Amino acid sequence: MNRDELTDLLEKVRKADVTVDDAVEQLKTLPYKDLQYAKVDYHRELRSGFPEVIYSPGKTIQQILGIVSDMMERTTGNILISRAEEDVAKALKEKYSQAIYHRQARIIVVKRKPYETSEGKILVVSAGTADIPIAEEAAITAEVMGNSVLRLYDVGVAGIHRLLSNIDVISQAKVLIVVAGMEGALASVVGGITDKPVIAVPTSVGYGANFSGLSALLGMLTSCANGIGVVNIDNGYGAACLASKINQL
Amino acid sequence: MNRDELTDLLEKVRKADVTVDDAVEQLKTLPYKDLQYAKVDYHRELRSGFPEVIYSPGKTIQQILGIVSDMMERTTGNILISRAEEDVAKALKEKYSQAIYHRQARIIVVKRKPYETSEGKILVVSAGTADIPIAEEAAITAEVMGNSVLRLYDVGVAGIHRLLSNIDVISQAKVLIVVAGMEGALASVVGGITDKPVIAVPTSVGYGANFSGLSALLGMLTSCANGIGVVNIDNGYGAACLASKINQL
Amino acid sequence: MNRDELTDLLEKVRKADVTVDDAVEQLKTLPYKDLQYAKVDYHRELRSGFPEVIYSPGKTIQQILGIVSDMMERTTGNILISRAEEDVAKALKEKYSQAIYHRQARIIVVKRKPYETSEGKILVVSAGTADIPIAEEAAITAEVMGNSVLRLYDVGVAGIHRLLSNIDVISQAKVLIVVAGMEGALASVVGGITDKPVIAVPTSVGYGANFSGLSALLGMLTSCANGIGVVNIDNGYGAACLASKINQL
Amino acid sequence: MNRDELTDLLEKVRKADVTVDDAVEQLKTLPYKDLQYAKVDYHRELRSGFPEVIYSPGKTIQQILGIVSDMMERTTGNILISRAEEDVAKALKEKYSQAIYHRQARIIVVKRKPYETSEGKILVVSAGTADIPIAEEAAITAEVMGNSVLRLYDVGVAGIHRLLSNIDVISQAKVLIVVAGMEGALASVVGGITDKPVIAVPTSVGYGANFSGLSALLGMLTSCANGIGVVNIDNGYGAACLASKINQL
Amino acid sequence: MNRDELTDLLEKVRKADVTVDDAVEQLKTLPYKDLQYAKVDYHRELRSGFPEVIYSPGKTIQQILGIVSDMMERTTGNILISRAEEDVAKALKEKYSQAIYHRQARIIVVKRKPYETSEGKILVVSAGTADIPIAEEAAITAEVMGNSVLRLYDVGVAGIHRLLSNIDVISQAKVLIVVAGMEGALASVVGGITDKPVIAVPTSVGYGANFSGLSALLGMLTSCANGIGVVNIDNGYGAACLASKINQL
Amino acid sequence: MNRDELTDLLEKVRKADVTVDDAVEQLKTLPYKDLQYAKVDYHRELRSGFPEVIYSPGKTIQQILGIVSDMMERTTGNILISRAEEDVAKALKEKYSQAIYHRQARIIVVKRKPYETSEGKILVVSAGTADIPIAEEAAITAEVMGNSVLRLYDVGVAGIHRLLSNIDVISQAKVLIVVAGMEGALASVVGGITDKPVIAVPTSVGYGANFSGLSALLGMLTSCANGIGVVNIDNGYGAACLASKINQL
Amino acid sequence: MNRDELTDLLEKVRKADVTVDDAVEQLKTLPYKDLQYAKVDYHRELRSGFPEVIYSPGKTIQQILGIVSDMMERTTGNILISRAEEDVAKALKEKYSQAIYHRQARIIVVKRKPYETSEGKILVVSAGTADIPIAEEAAITAEVMGNSVLRLYDVGVAGIHRLLSNIDVISQAKVLIVVAGMEGALASVVGGITDKPVIAVPTSVGYGANFSGLSALLGMLTSCANGIGVVNIDNGYGAACLASKINQL
Amino acid sequence: MNRDELTDLLEKVRKADVTVDDAVEQLKTLPYKDLQYAKVDYHRELRSGFPEVIYSPGKTIQQILGIVSDMMERTTGNILISRAEEDVAKALKEKYSQAIYHRQARIIVVKRKPYETSEGKILVVSAGTADIPIAEEAAITAEVMGNSVLRLYDVGVAGIHRLLSNIDVISQAKVLIVVAGMEGALASVVGGITDKPVIAVPTSVGYGANFSGLSALLGMLTSCANGIGVVNIDNGYGAACLASKINQL
Repeated sequence: MNRDELTDLLEKVRKADVTVDDAVEQLKTLPYKDLQYAKVDYHRELRSGFPEVIYSPGKTIQQILGIVSDMMERTTGNILISRAEEDVAKALKEKYSQAIYHRQARIIVVKRKPYETSEGKILVVSAGTADIPIAEEAAITAEVMGNSVLRLYDVGVAGIHRLLSNIDVISQAKVLIVVAGMEGALASVVGGITDKPVIAVPTSVGYGANFSGLSALLGMLTSCANGIGVVNIDNGYGAACLASKINQL
Repeated sequence: MNRDELTDLLEKVRKADVTVDDAVEQLKTLPYKDLQYAKVDYHRELRSGFPEVIYSPGKTIQQILGIVSDMMERTTGNILISRAEEDVAKALKEKYSQAIYHRQARIIVVKRKPYETSEGKILVVSAGTADIPIAEEAAITAEVMGNSVLRLYDVGVAGIHRLLSNIDVISQAKVLIVVAGMEGALASVVGGITDKPVIAVPTSVGYGANFSGLSALLGMLTSCANGIGVVNIDNGYGAACLASKINQL
Repeated sequence: MNRDELTDLLEKVRKADVTVDDAVEQLKTLPYKDLQYAKVDYHRELRSGFPEVIYSPGKTIQQILGIVSDMMERTTGNILISRAEEDVAKALKEKYSQAIYHRQARIIVVKRKPYETSEGKILVVSAGTADIPIAEEAAITAEVMGNSVLRLYDVGVAGIHRLLSNIDVISQAKVLIVVAGMEGALASVVGGITDKPVIAVPTSVGYGANFSGLSALLGMLTSCANGIGVVNIDNGYGAACLASKINQL
Repeated sequence: MNRDELTDLLEKVRKADVTVDDAVEQLKTLPYKDLQYAKVDYHRELRSGFPEVIYSPGKTIQQILGIVSDMMERTTGNILISRAEEDVAKALKEKYSQAIYHRQARIIVVKRKPYETSEGKILVVSAGTADIPIAEEAAITAEVMGNSVLRLYDVGVAGIHRLLSNIDVISQAKVLIVVAGMEGALASVVGGITDKPVIAVPTSVGYGANFSGLSALLGMLTSCANGIGVVNIDNGYGAACLASKINQL
Repeated sequence: MNRDELTDLLEKVRKADVTVDDAVEQLKTLPYKDLQYAKVDYHRELRSGFPEVIYSPGKTIQQILGIVSDMMERTTGNILISRAEEDVAKALKEKYSQAIYHRQARIIVVKRKPYETSEGKILVVSAGTADIPIAEEAAITAEVMGNSVLRLYDVGVAGIHRLLSNIDVISQAKVLIVVAGMEGALASVVGGITDKPVIAVPTSVGYGANFSGLSALLGMLTSCANGIGVVNIDNGYGAACLASKINQL
Repeated sequence: MNRDELTDLLEKVRKADVTVDDAVEQLKTLPYKDLQYAKVDYHRELRSGFPEVIYSPGKTIQQILGIVSDMMERTTGNILISRAEEDVAKALKEKYSQAIYHRQARIIVVKRKPYETSEGKILVVSAGTADIPIAEEAAITAEVMGNSVLRLYDVGVAGIHRLLSNIDVISQAKVLIVVAGMEGALASVVGGITDKPVIAVPTSVGYGANFSGLSALLGMLTSCANGIGVVNIDNGYGAACLASKINQL
Repeated sequence: MNRDELTDLLEKVRKADVTVDDAVEQLKTLPYKDLQYAKVDYHRELRSGFPEVIYSPGKTIQQILGIVSDMMERTTGNILISRAEEDVAKALKEKYSQAIYHRQARIIVVKRKPYETSEGKILVVSAGTADIPIAEEAAITAEVMGNSVLRLYDVGVAGIHRLLSNIDVISQAKVLIVVAGMEGALASVVGGITDKPVIAVPTSVGYGANFSGLSALLGMLTSCANGIGVVNIDNGYGAACLASKINQL
Repeated sequence: MNRDELTDLLEKVRKADVTVDDAVEQLKTLPYKDLQYAKVDYHRELRSGFPEVIYSPGKTIQQILGIVSDMMERTTGNILISRAEEDVAKALKEKYSQAIYHRQARIIVVKRKPYETSEGKILVVSAGTADIPIAEEAAITAEVMGNSVLRLYDVGVAGIHRLLSNIDVISQAKVLIVVAGMEGALASVVGGITDKPVIAVPTSVGYGANFSGLSALLGMLTSCANGIGVVNIDNGYGAACLASKINQL
C-alpha cells in the first residue's frame, strides 16, 4: 500500500464512502500488508521464471504429492522438487505427465510451461565427476529459473590444461558457479582467470581430512582470488538462486 | 592475441615482413600472453574505477612508500592501501597531498582522479557499531571502485524495527553487502526482505562462543534465506570486489 | 528433617521415648535424608503437574513396559515417555488404554489425570517445518507439566512478516521457547521483540556447515539480543523443563 | 497503536478533526510505530530499574564520556558501563560524583537514584575465586536492574561440602545464576539440588583442554540436570538480564 | 640378561666352555632379548590374573574362533574377548563350555581358572544407566585381571544425595574408576570426595553438544579436582588396565 | 612444442611448406599443447609401470565396466581399480580373466603385462592389524606401479622390540611408507631410526578421541622426527604415488 | 562423626550431659561435618608431606603475600606457589628466608620442614628440552609432596636409543609421569616398555597443527599402549598429584 | 657393531687379549651402541652437508651462545640456528665472524666450510609475498644441507599465468617444495603440472577462516593431485629435510 492508496482510503473515510470499521480492518494489517506487498513484488519477479520449490528430504511421498496437488491449483508456474529420490520421482510421474526427473541432480520439475532463456549466461564449472550431482543441481535449478546455462565439467586443477583450453567458454559467462570438493582449489583458479562474479559451492566429495566438506569450504572462503561468494556445502540450489538474481539484474 | 592477429602475424612471416626470429619471440610466450590478454582486458575494466590495491599488514612504511612511489609512475589510477594504521597514513600524507585516510575503514586512498559513480547502488548494511570498521572497509572500497554506495548502519536484528523502518533504502539497492558479527542473523533477515543479491560478511565482533567470527560465519553459510554469498571473516574488501563486479555487469 | 523435628527426636531420646540405637539409625542418614527432604519438596511441586519421565532411546520395549508398570503402582501422576518410536507406542497402547502417542513429538503420555492449566502461557515458536518435531517435544512436555501452551510455527526470519504479523500472540506469553535450526536467527529476532524470558533450542536441522546443529547453537549463544538462555541441540524436553519452572514461579 | 487508537484517528478523519495529510503522516509509519510501541512498553519496564548500558571495549574514553553526557540529559535512570577498565572509571568519577566503580566486575554505575529491591532473590553461585569477576558482573548488573541479590562464592564441586552446607542460602533464591570455568560441573550439581530456574555462565577460566571456555560451555549444555539455560562464555551481563526478567515476572 | 649373566657367558668363552659362534648367536640379539626379558617379566605378572585379550570389532567369527583355538593350546590363562556382539558369543559358547558372555559389557570370558581376588578394591562408579555398558566393561575386565571390584551405579550429580549416601562404599576403594557421559561432572565430584587415585572414563552417552563424548572428555581433563587421570572416550577396558596396575602395586 | 619446433614451423610458413591456416590451427592451441606435451612426458613415465586408475566409490558396476572396456581398447598398460568392493571384483573377473582382486587392499588389477620391479625398495610399515587394509592399498599400488615392495606389519610402538628387531629390513628400504592409526606414533619412531624419506599415512583406525583419524593425522604432522611427509587419512594410494615417484627418481 | 561418636553424643543427651539445644547445634551440621571428617582424614594424609598450594596466575604479589602470611600462621607444612614468575619469587624471598624458587618449574616452595622421601619412586620422563618446565613442575611438586623422584629428560622418540639405553632407570620406578609435546608419542613407547602405571602430560610445545597441545593430547588419549591416564595440557602439577596418590598407596 | 666386530671381540676374550670386565663394559651397551652405530651412519651422511641445527625460540641468547660454543669445539660442520630473531643474530655475529644472518628466513648460519652443491635441484615455489619467510627458511636450509636450490616466488593461482610462464623452471627440479597460505591451492596446481615429488608447506598466512593455517593444511591434505606429502604449518625447515633426503638419494 503506497502513499497514494493510503491517501485515497482516508479520503474515502472522510467522505464516508468507507466506514471506519472497514478502514480499521484494512489498516490494522498494514505492517505485514506492506511486507506482503514486497512479497507480491517478489512474486512478480518469480512469475518470470522462478519455480515453486519443495525440499524433499524428511517429507513422505504422500506429503509431497499433497503439496504439489495444492500448487497445481494455486499457481501456474513450474514446480521444482529438490533432493528427490527415485521413488518420489516415480510417484510424481505417475500422477503428472509433465514431471521430469533429473536423476543426477535429484531434481523433479513439473514443467507446465517452457523455461525462459536469459541473454546473460550462467556457467557451471565443476572439478571432478563426483561433483556433478551438485553441479547439475545448480545448473537445472538455474535453467528452471529462466537462465541460459553453460556447463564445463571435470576440469579440476590437477590437470590445469583442461581448464585453460576452455577459456573461450569461460569468457562467455556473465556469472560463474564453481563446484568443487576435496581442497576446492578450482574456485581460486577460476576466480583468477575471469573478472565476472564467481559463486563457489564446496562439496562434501572427499574423505579423511576433507571432514565432510570442511576443507573445500575453508579453502574457498580464504581464496587468494578476490570477489568469490561462497554458499553452504553441497548447496547447488542456493548457488543457482544467487547466480540467477545476478544474471537477471 | 586473437585468431585474426595470429593469422596476420603468420602472413607477415610468409611475406617476410617479419623475421622468423621475431615471430618466435612473439609466439613463444603465447600461453601467458593469451592470459595477459585476459589481464589486459581486466585492466581495461579496472581503469574505469578499480584501484591499485596494497594490503598493508606485514609491510614496513618504507616498503609501502616504495610501492606507492612505483605505482605513481607506472599508473594513473587511484591507489588504495587497505588495513593501514595511523602511522602509515601519516607518512603517506606527508609525501602525497592527495592521500586521504579513512580512519575507521583503515583505508588510505591516494586520490588522483575523481571516483566514478555507477547508476546501480550498493547498499552496505551493518548490525552493530562495532561492525562499522568492516562495513566502512567495504563501503569505501566500493566507492573507490566507482560504485554509488548507500549505508544503513546499526540495524541489528535485536531491534528489528530499525531495519524495517528503512525498507525504502533497502529497495533502492542493486546489490547488498550485509556486515554482522556475533550470530550474524542480519544476513538472513535482509536476505528475506530483498530479492536482490546479498553478500554477507561475518565479522569477528563478539567473544566466547563467537570463536573469532566462527558463529557468524556458520550462521551466514546456513542461512534460511536463499541466495546469499558469504566471504571470509572481516573481509569487507572482498565483499566490495564481488559487489562491484555484480553492480557493474 | 527440619530443626523442629530434630529437636523433637532429641527430646524423645532425652526422655527415653526413643532408644539411642533407634535415634542413631535415624540420624546416621541425616545427610541424605536432608536431601531427600529437598527431594520430597521437589516431589510436592511435581505432583502438581510434573510427569514421571522415561527417556526411551537405548531401552528395549520390555524394559520400558517394566518401568511403566512399576510407576503405575508407585505413583498416581501422568507418565511421559520421550523420544519414543512407533513400536514402543504400539506396545504401550495395547497395555494401557490411557496411553496417547504424539507422533511428531515422539512422546507417549500415559494420561491418568487431566493436565493442569497454568494462568501464565508458554509460547513455542519454531522457524521451519523441519523444526516442528522438537517444537512439539517442548510443547507437549510443557502441557503435561501443567502449563498452558501457545504455538507459533513456521515463522522463520527469511520471511520476517510472518513473525511480525503475530506480535499479538507473542505478547500473550509469559515465557517463550524458540526452536530453530540452520543459523538459528529466529532466537535473536524474537529476543529483540519481547521483554519476556526466551529459551532457545538449536536444532540439528540443516546440512553442510550446520555441522549437526553447531551453527544454530553458536548463533544462539552469541545472540545480539540479551537475556536468552540456550539448551542443548534438539533438547525440546529440557527447554520445556526450564520454561515450566519459570512459568510456575 | 492499538485498535482503539486507530479507530479514534479514523473517526477524527471522518469528522475532519484531523486532515487526511496529517493522518497519512501518522499511518505511513504504522509498521514500526507499532514496534516502537513495543519499545515504549519495554521502556516502561526499564524505567522501573533497568539501567542504560554502555559496553566499554572498543570505545575511547572520550566516546564513553560523550555517550554518558548525552544520557545524563536524555534520561533519568542509572547508567551502567560494562567491561570498563580503571582509566575509564577514573575519567568518569572525575566528571560525575555519582559514579561508582566496581573493580572486580569491571562495572561503572552512574547512580542517579537508589536501586529498586525486588521481593524475589537472585542467587549468584560461583565455583572458584577466578570466576568471581564474571560472577560480580552478573551480581552488580542484577542489582542495578532492581533485584535483590545473594552471593555464594568459591563453592566448586571439588569440595562438595562447601556447597551442601549452604543449602539454606540456595533455598532462598527465586532464580539462580551459576558461574563456573574449567569443567563447569557446578551447574549440574546446583541444578540437581534446586527446583528453581538455573542460568549457567561458563567462564574462560582454565587452560589447555579448556580451550577458552569450551569445556565449561559444552559441559553446561549437556548437563545431566534438566532445566538449565546457558549463556555465552563470560557473559555475566547476559545472565543477569535473563535472571532479572524471570525474577520480575 | 643382566651383568652377571653377561660376565658368566664371557667367562665361559674365555674358558672355551662356549664357542665364539654360540656366544655371537646369543649376543647379537641382545637388544631385543633384553626387551623380551622385560616381556617375560610382564608375562609373569600377567599369569597371576591378566587375561589374554582379543578386540572383537573388525574380526570375523571365524577369525576369533581361530585365535581362541590357538590360545587354548598356547596358554593356560583366561581369555577375554572385548566388544563382542551376541553372535560371537553364541559361536564361542557352542565350542567352549567355559565361555561366559557378559552382555552389557559386551565381554566374553573363556574362563579356564578362577579369577584371583586382590585385597585392594577397585570401585567402579557410573553416572547414568546408559553408562553402565562401559562401566561393566571396566568392572568385568578388572575382575578377570584378578581384582576385587565394587560397583556404584546411577549416582549422577543431578541427584548428588545418591552419591553422598554411599560415601562408605567410596571409602572402601583403593582405586576408583568413574564412568560418565554428558558433561562428565561426576569425576570432579568423586575426585573431591576421595583422596584415592581416580581414573575417569568419558562416555559417548549424550547428544547434540556432547559431540560423541567430547563434552565429557574436555570436562574430565579440565576438572577442578586434582589427580584425575583420563582415558579415551568409552575406553572401559583401558581404565581397568590402569586401575589394575595401580591396585596391584 | 619447444623453440626449435616453433622455429621449424615458422620456417615452413615462410617457405610456404605449410599454409598460414594450418599453422594457425597448430599455434592457436599452443597453450595447452605445451601442457599436453608435459602430459605426454608424464605418460612416458607412466608407460613404465604406472597403471590407469579408477576410483570405485560412487560408481555403478556398469559404469566401471564401461570405463575398463574403454581403457582396454585405448591403452595397453595395467588397470587398477581402487576401493573396490566384492561385487565389483566379481563382475570384472567374469568379464576379464586377467582381473585379480586384492581383497584386503580393496584393489582390482586387470593385469595385462607383468609388473616392473625397481632396484630401490619401498618398505611399507604398519602399526596394527587393523591398519593392514590401508597398508596393502599402498603396497599393491606401489607394486603395480613397478616398485619392489617390502612389508613390515604389526610393529606398533606399544611393543617397540618388534620394530627394533627388524632394523635390518628397515635399512634395506629406499623409501618408507608408515601406516598407523590411533596416535600414529609409529611414524615418529621410524622417522628417528632411518635417514631415508618417510611418508606417513594416518588411518581412521581407533575410536573416541581418535575423531576419525584426526589424532593420528595431527600426531604425524607434528612429529618430533624431521623429514616426514604426510598424506590424507586412509590414503594408501596417494602415499604409494609419492613413494613411487621418489623411488624411481 | 562416626557411629561411635554419634552414639556417644546421644547417650549424653539421654543422660542430660548435653542439652538438646547443644546437640541440635552439633547435629544440624551433620551432613557437612561428615564431609569435613573426610576432609580431616585428607588433612591427615596431607600433613605427611602434601603442601599447601597457591596457584599464582591472576593474583597480585600483594594477594599472594597475604595468603602466604595467613598460611604461615595457620599451618606448619610447606607451602607451594605454582606458576610463579620471577617478581613473585623475589618478593617472597625478601620476606621469607625459607623460600626457594625453582625457576624452570616456576614453583616457589616456602620450605618449613624437610621433604619426606618415599620408598617407591616416581620417574618423570620428558621428550624434549622445551618440555622440561612442565616436567620440572611435576617433579618438584612430587618431591614437595614427599616422593622420591627420578628424572629422565630429553629422550624423545625421534632418537629411540636414548630411551632404550635407560631401561634400568625406567625399571626402578613405581609410577611414571611422561611429559611430551608435539605428537606426544613418548607416552605410547614408555607405556609399551613398562608395566607400571603411566600418567601422561601433553604439553603445548609445538606450533601449527599442534594447536596449542591438541595433537599431543589426542595422541596420548588414543595411545596404542593400554593403561595410560592422561591429564590436562601442561598440567604437571595435576600429574604429580595423581602420581603421588598412587605412589603412597 | 657388526657380526665381525662381535666375533673379533669374543675371540680376544677367548685369547685373553681382552679381559672379561672390559668386554662386559663394551657389550652391556650393545643395544644402544648398535643404534648409535646407526647414528654414526647418520652422522656420516650428515657430514656431507647436513648442518647441526639449533631451534632458537624459547632459548636465551646466552644458552644459544653456549650451545654454539660447544659445537664449535665438538664438530667441524656448519651450524644452523633456525627461527632466530635479530638480537640473536647480532650476538652471534659479534662472536663469530663466519655467522651469516638470513633475515627473512630467520636463519643464522655459522658457515665454517662451503656448502656442497647437488646435481639434482630442489625448487621452492611460493604463492604470495607473505609466504616468502617460510619459503626462504626451506630454501636456505636446503642449501646449507648441500642442495642446489631454485626459487619461484609469488606465483599464486589467482594469476595462473605467472606459474604457467615458468614451466621451464619447474621442469628443472628433481624435488619441489610448494609453500602457500590462505587456501593453499598452489600445491594442487603444481602437483598437476609436474611428475616429480612435491612437498607442500601450508603457512599461517591469512586471517578469519584461515584459522592459523588450518585452511591451507586441510586443502593440501585433500588435494586432488596425487603424490603430495604435507608437513606441519609454517614448517619450512621440515620440508627442506625431506626434500634433501629425496634429492640426495
